[in-house]
Amino acid sequence: MSKKYLNNSWYCGAWATEVTTGLFHRVIAGQDILFFRDKAGEPTALSNFCPHRSAPLHLGKLLDDKIECPYHGLQYGLDGKCVHNPHHPEGEPQKSACLQQFPIVEQHDLLWIWMGDPDLADSAAIPDFSCHTDKSMAKVFGVIEMKAYYELITDNLLDLTHASYVHEGVLGSEGIINGEQEVISDGTTIYVNRWCPDHLAPPAWDKAFGDYGKPMDHWLYMRWDAPAHMLLDVGVTPTGKTRQEGLWVYGTDILTPQDETTTHYFWAITYNKGIDNPEVAKMWEHTIDFAFGGQDKPMIEAQQKMINLRGGVDIEDLESIWLDTDSGPKRARLMLKKLMAKKSAIPEPKNPGLRECMEESDKAKDKSERIIPAV
Amino acid sequence: MSKKYLNNSWYCGAWATEVTTGLFHRVIAGQDILFFRDKAGEPTALSNFCPHRSAPLHLGKLLDDKIECPYHGLQYGLDGKCVHNPHHPEGEPQKSACLQQFPIVEQHDLLWIWMGDPDLADSAAIPDFSCHTDKSMAKVFGVIEMKAYYELITDNLLDLTHASYVHEGVLGSEGIINGEQEVISDGTTIYVNRWCPDHLAPPAWDKAFGDYGKPMDHWLYMRWDAPAHMLLDVGVTPTGKTRQEGLWVYGTDILTPQDETTTHYFWAITYNKGIDNPEVAKMWEHTIDFAFGGQDKPMIEAQQKMINLRGGVDIEDLESIWLDTDSGPKRARLMLKKLMAKKSAIPEPKNPGLRECMEESDKAKDKSERIIPAV
Amino acid sequence: MSKKYLNNSWYCGAWATEVTTGLFHRVIAGQDILFFRDKAGEPTALSNFCPHRSAPLHLGKLLDDKIECPYHGLQYGLDGKCVHNPHHPEGEPQKSACLQQFPIVEQHDLLWIWMGDPDLADSAAIPDFSCHTDKSMAKVFGVIEMKAYYELITDNLLDLTHASYVHEGVLGSEGIINGEQEVISDGTTIYVNRWCPDHLAPPAWDKAFGDYGKPMDHWLYMRWDAPAHMLLDVGVTPTGKTRQEGLWVYGTDILTPQDETTTHYFWAITYNKGIDNPEVAKMWEHTIDFAFGGQDKPMIEAQQKMINLRGGVDIEDLESIWLDTDSGPKRARLMLKKLMAKKSAIPEPKNPGLRECMEESDKAKDKSERIIPAV
Repeated sequence: MSKKYLNNSWYCGAWATEVTTGLFHRVIAGQDILFFRDKAGEPTALSNFCPHRSAPLHLGKLLDDKIECPYHGLQYGLDGKCVHNPHHPEGEPQKSACLQQFPIVEQHDLLWIWMGDPDLADSAAIPDFSCHTDKSMAKVFGVIEMKAYYELITDNLLDLTHASYVHEGVLGSEGIINGEQEVISDGTTIYVNRWCPDHLAPPAWDKAFGDYGKPMDHWLYMRWDAPAHMLLDVGVTPTGKTRQEGLWVYGTDILTPQDETTTHYFWAITYNKGIDNPEVAKMWEHTIDFAFGGQDKPMIEAQQKMINLRGGVDIEDLESIWLDTDSGPKRARLMLKKLMAKKSAIPEPKNPGLRECMEESDKAKDKSERIIPAV
Repeated sequence: MSKKYLNNSWYCGAWATEVTTGLFHRVIAGQDILFFRDKAGEPTALSNFCPHRSAPLHLGKLLDDKIECPYHGLQYGLDGKCVHNPHHPEGEPQKSACLQQFPIVEQHDLLWIWMGDPDLADSAAIPDFSCHTDKSMAKVFGVIEMKAYYELITDNLLDLTHASYVHEGVLGSEGIINGEQEVISDGTTIYVNRWCPDHLAPPAWDKAFGDYGKPMDHWLYMRWDAPAHMLLDVGVTPTGKTRQEGLWVYGTDILTPQDETTTHYFWAITYNKGIDNPEVAKMWEHTIDFAFGGQDKPMIEAQQKMINLRGGVDIEDLESIWLDTDSGPKRARLMLKKLMAKKSAIPEPKNPGLRECMEESDKAKDKSERIIPAV
Repeated sequence: MSKKYLNNSWYCGAWATEVTTGLFHRVIAGQDILFFRDKAGEPTALSNFCPHRSAPLHLGKLLDDKIECPYHGLQYGLDGKCVHNPHHPEGEPQKSACLQQFPIVEQHDLLWIWMGDPDLADSAAIPDFSCHTDKSMAKVFGVIEMKAYYELITDNLLDLTHASYVHEGVLGSEGIINGEQEVISDGTTIYVNRWCPDHLAPPAWDKAFGDYGKPMDHWLYMRWDAPAHMLLDVGVTPTGKTRQEGLWVYGTDILTPQDETTTHYFWAITYNKGIDNPEVAKMWEHTIDFAFGGQDKPMIEAQQKMINLRGGVDIEDLESIWLDTDSGPKRARLMLKKLMAKKSAIPEPKNPGLRECMEESDKAKDKSERIIPAV
């Protein structure tokens, strides 16, 4: 595994629905991984090559919880061990042939795979995306491939001022640029919170709130966990009202590096209004398709090409200017470096009351009044 | 020439019919070669670049047994020497300009080119493909480009157990997997013989034998010569009958590396039944197109991509498991290494009676009874 | 900047009409350059990436002579200095953010950009292409992208004997091959003159001279300035007549390397006959499209591929034969090396009377009679 990837870490491998009893594969952090569900419906993740001739196993067959290599028919069990060699007179397995098994956890409609030392895999370290399965909400979701180094996409997501330029007329507004930004560390988790009170909402938000047309409070609270798992708590509410009275949405932005030049971007929008209305789902899908696929993707891919022309892979390979608005990206990059140095993304203890405290304090006149509860 | 290629060796450059009085070129072992026939119909092979500005000569003209460079008009004779410089006041040739001439031999409907020291080129070293010109047989033939390192294709051909997986329902059968395999060296030639008695024949064979439907003896005898010239003696006959009473076919599989990532695969099927029936020819062409183009090619190219992802070019660059069924590929790879170390594929003396002996002994109860005649 | 490019040099960046008040970019000698005109119509050239996140600025906006970055909205003035940071509470510019400004000169319908030390930029060093704006002539012009190292195209243009092979039946003739060639240095400028008297003109020339059908004098006088700025003084006139009585044309051939594998080829044909006739303009456009796009481009790109296969980028990376007709390319390559060694293309003093002297002397029996005027 390249120095660019955090080894001992959970990665989002797939949406739960992408993996069935068929054979599915995806390259994650430079390794080709085979995903499938066994007869009991449990997900499995194995290295996607036969150790005999390196044939890709996803071209093979899944026979009664055994993977058959498409090239010469060696069979492997759910634990990756060879269970049958058809060329042996008695079909005895080739003991030396073994697929790497990766810890895998199905949680919150996602399949999380651990790419490092299996003994260190602790599902408690998987960030919370429980909004995905909250029955009071609905979600649309998908995965986009971006031809860019994943930290460039993290930068994009942790500095949402870009919305006013890249998503001008859709998700951008004067209010976002003029908002107050706060970067808070909570163990290994980082929050980048932008509070944008009493401005006309971005056009897509205003429209989604029934063409409201009047000033609103707009919040964009991004939570980051290493290596690049983000959840945006975002919404609009009439100025001075509670979040519950407004339109409250969670934006999932989980980045899984395929390699240094390509990233799998798992996205979702989980929303609390119109959850039974297929038109609302369509609207959110269209917004994401337009904003992420049609605006962010070309911008980030053009940025990547320019970085390549300038002789780098990542922005840190080049001389660059860092602005105050980069404090979020900067903090996350620093944390990732720190975790890569200690070779693990195992999270540190978190402050249980912080989340609520952050919401409350938005409307305080003075942020210094905020009382961050002790861990 | 890269360390990956055997320099002092004959390579198949083209099917005889591919080369006419037009200018034809093909990249062989990293070198671009110009092929054409002179007025007498004799084939010529020269380096395909003008030593003046490196223009590709196949874009030029063949004028009365002289090649004219398409860029500035220098002319070269059949021996590669410059015979005319149109820019010299008297048209005197530029003596220092000279194309490399490669020994070329037309034999058994193939054009063989020697890529090494011309003094060592001995046409007696060209393997026997005389079945191609056997009047009692008919053949279909062609050339496929595979995006793979050539030794991976050799591996494929010297371990035909893959037929039961890659060509399942076409050329594969239980009988092949359960067959007896024998690997025999004869000088620098290697035989990998698979004898599969008294099983239902693979579906394509059964159909070609008139939808026979009953157990047959099936033989697959592959002959290998360095660097990758193979001939498969293959067929089916009713259990216990002689080969002559069955359907007897020769499969030509000659691999010529273009470079380390691409291989020219010259194939032919030479058969003894229905030789005047165009439907039979079509059937064989269809079978090859389906099995080699539609099944082997995608498998081997997927294998190559996986090897590349794992950081190698060839399977030997990676940690891999070798099975007993790899004894053929292993023996050939070893022989090729040995020949590359001594920088020549000049064959050692062969055992004249071995071929017949091998056929006879198939039906012996005990292979150890086989008497291999002395050289 | 790579050792392959002459740093302190003017490069043709664009035809003047390519650059408007929109944002235009082109990669020149490895650097992506942003071109646009300000409100006063003056051209500007700046580095095309925001020093913040390396986003390409040509995707941004030009607002009242300020460039706005498409990603986060930083604004830059005509001199490349940041003039506005929308994320600063008072919009104060980020002083450390600065685009590189390149000296740019609009001259003879071309935009010339200086890629080196701005203090050394002297517009007097830009070669003379005043024919472009000569009111007594008309011109057609364009730009072709060639997938080749630029010096290979210089070689093509400084040895016009290739016309008789590559452009056979169009721009080639026996007369060109048999012509007299003279290579003359004048400071850092090189002339490669080919005088081809009293032969049937090349077919395209004969046709353009009203299907003349009789022998003519044909001259091809190429002027070269570093790194690859060429002007061809070319025409046909009835044998023994003056140039003025014939068809007199200037061919512009200016090569700007994009990188080591791609070249921008700025071409023009400036002519003195039928200057108001749109059919004549069409004829010249068609001729260039056919000869440069359809004949030179495939030849040079095929040559480049062959050089790559042989392990080089440029012909000088390989063992090659140089002919007498290469004296022009050779002289230019030597001069370019000399200028790259002293890191500047600042031209040396020129001989003012040389140009006229060259024309006069064509018809002298003995070229040695030519009197080259003193500088």
